[in-house]
Amino acid sequence: MNSKKNRRAEKTGAPPEKRPSRQDRLSPRVLEAVRQEAKSFFRNARGSHDWDHTQRVYELCLRLGRKERADLDVLRLAALLHDIGRDEEDRSNGRTCHAEKGAVLARKILKKNGIDEERTAKIVRCIETHRYRGRIVPDSLEGKILFDADKLDSIGAVGVGRAFLFAGEVGARLHDPGIDVGKTKPYTKEDTAYREFLVKLSRIKARMFTAEGRRIARGRHKFMADFFRRLNRETVGKI
Amino acid sequence: MNSKKNRRAEKTGAPPEKRPSRQDRLSPRVLEAVRQEAKSFFRNARGSHDWDHTQRVYELCLRLGRKERADLDVLRLAALLHDIGRDEEDRSNGRTCHAEKGAVLARKILKKNGIDEERTAKIVRCIETHRYRGRIVPDSLEGKILFDADKLDSIGAVGVGRAFLFAGEVGARLHDPGIDVGKTKPYTKEDTAYREFLVKLSRIKARMFTAEGRRIARGRHKFMADFFRRLNRETVGKI
Repeated sequence: MNSKKNRRAEKTGAPPEKRPSRQDRLSPRVLEAVRQEAKSFFRNARGSHDWDHTQRVYELCLRLGRKERADLDVLRLAALLHDIGRDEEDRSNGRTCHAEKGAVLARKILKKNGIDEERTAKIVRCIETHRYRGRIVPDSLEGKILFDADKLDSIGAVGVGRAFLFAGEVGARLHDPGIDVGKTKPYTKEDTAYREFLVKLSRIKARMFTAEGRRIARGRHKFMADFFRRLNRETVGKI
Repeated sequence: MNSKKNRRAEKTGAPPEKRPSRQDRLSPRVLEAVRQEAKSFFRNARGSHDWDHTQRVYELCLRLGRKERADLDVLRLAALLHDIGRDEEDRSNGRTCHAEKGAVLARKILKKNGIDEERTAKIVRCIETHRYRGRIVPDSLEGKILFDADKLDSIGAVGVGRAFLFAGEVGARLHDPGIDVGKTKPYTKEDTAYREFLVKLSRIKARMFTAEGRRIARGRHKFMADFFRRLNRETVGKI
């Protein structure tokens, strides 16, 4: 038993003294119930912000969380629930904030599933503060990890794919090499992947909170920047 | 005058003896008229097959045509008109062949603009034979160049972007790493960019007809293959 415990501690990277006692640990049954409830919010989701995105963020949260010795159960629930307000933001064309809305919805789900008040508060705070454009910034290790994981999924090859997928969803052009980003607006036909790269994706690397997030972001950023450089050269027929 | 002619011959790469006489050359006025008429077919086009694509293919045709010493005027008109049947193919969900339809439409436009019968036949033949899945294959230098230019625009960084844009247009997922390509269909939600890469884009390099097309395809293919390799690794959280 002890060696199993040790292996587990090694795998999670969490120091034993920090781990919650057995009765406090999240049961697989509750985790699964929350997962199914979260998933139900994505029935009509578009590919750029769908359940696959949540699952990738979940895995990234565990990866960063182990490295940074965070509370993995808080992270698991925060990751599963972080985008459940997205559908409402999309339907309001961006007027509703999905982080604020998601926090309200998450609190109810956590209460229904018997998560204690202290942990609920931590999870809800992570969701409230995970937004790139948000006014409030993450103030806990778990909040910082959720923010980093969510943003890492919008850069690199995944980020390039998501940016073009989103452009396709809103009926945008493939590319506008001579774009004046000051004159175009999100959620319109001018919202090309290249505009998204110039105004947002290229800046994400500098916004990471955790050391492991910064490390992964460097590789993903370089790949993405190389991609758009090449796109510009191909478009004018240089290569 | 002679030196101007020589500079021009050098720029186009066409040997002087092959170039048409002054009265046979395409006038800028006619070229512009055909361009405007062709463009009008793209009013409702989606970003993955829009007028920008035609313009990129036009530039690639000139680039390959100069290198391969082709009839640039035939290429110019064939490039402008090659996808004007696309709208009808899209509206028929793929039942109409855009190459056959485009050839019929192009013949009328060329006649109306006073292009002679011999050149019209060459241009129409290029359009009929430019399709990747077509039963008939290009049988002239200009036809081979149009085919190569059109396919080059679907690989490389441009090809990656177009594949995701198209997936967004049809409401597909971002990625399905464990895809069984035999079980999915084009024009559906399963038509991911990765499926398109596996069944089509990865094979284009081997289908080039011209030496210059092959050379450009090698670089674009490598970049695209690296992209999807990286996408797979990022998706499972390896990088």
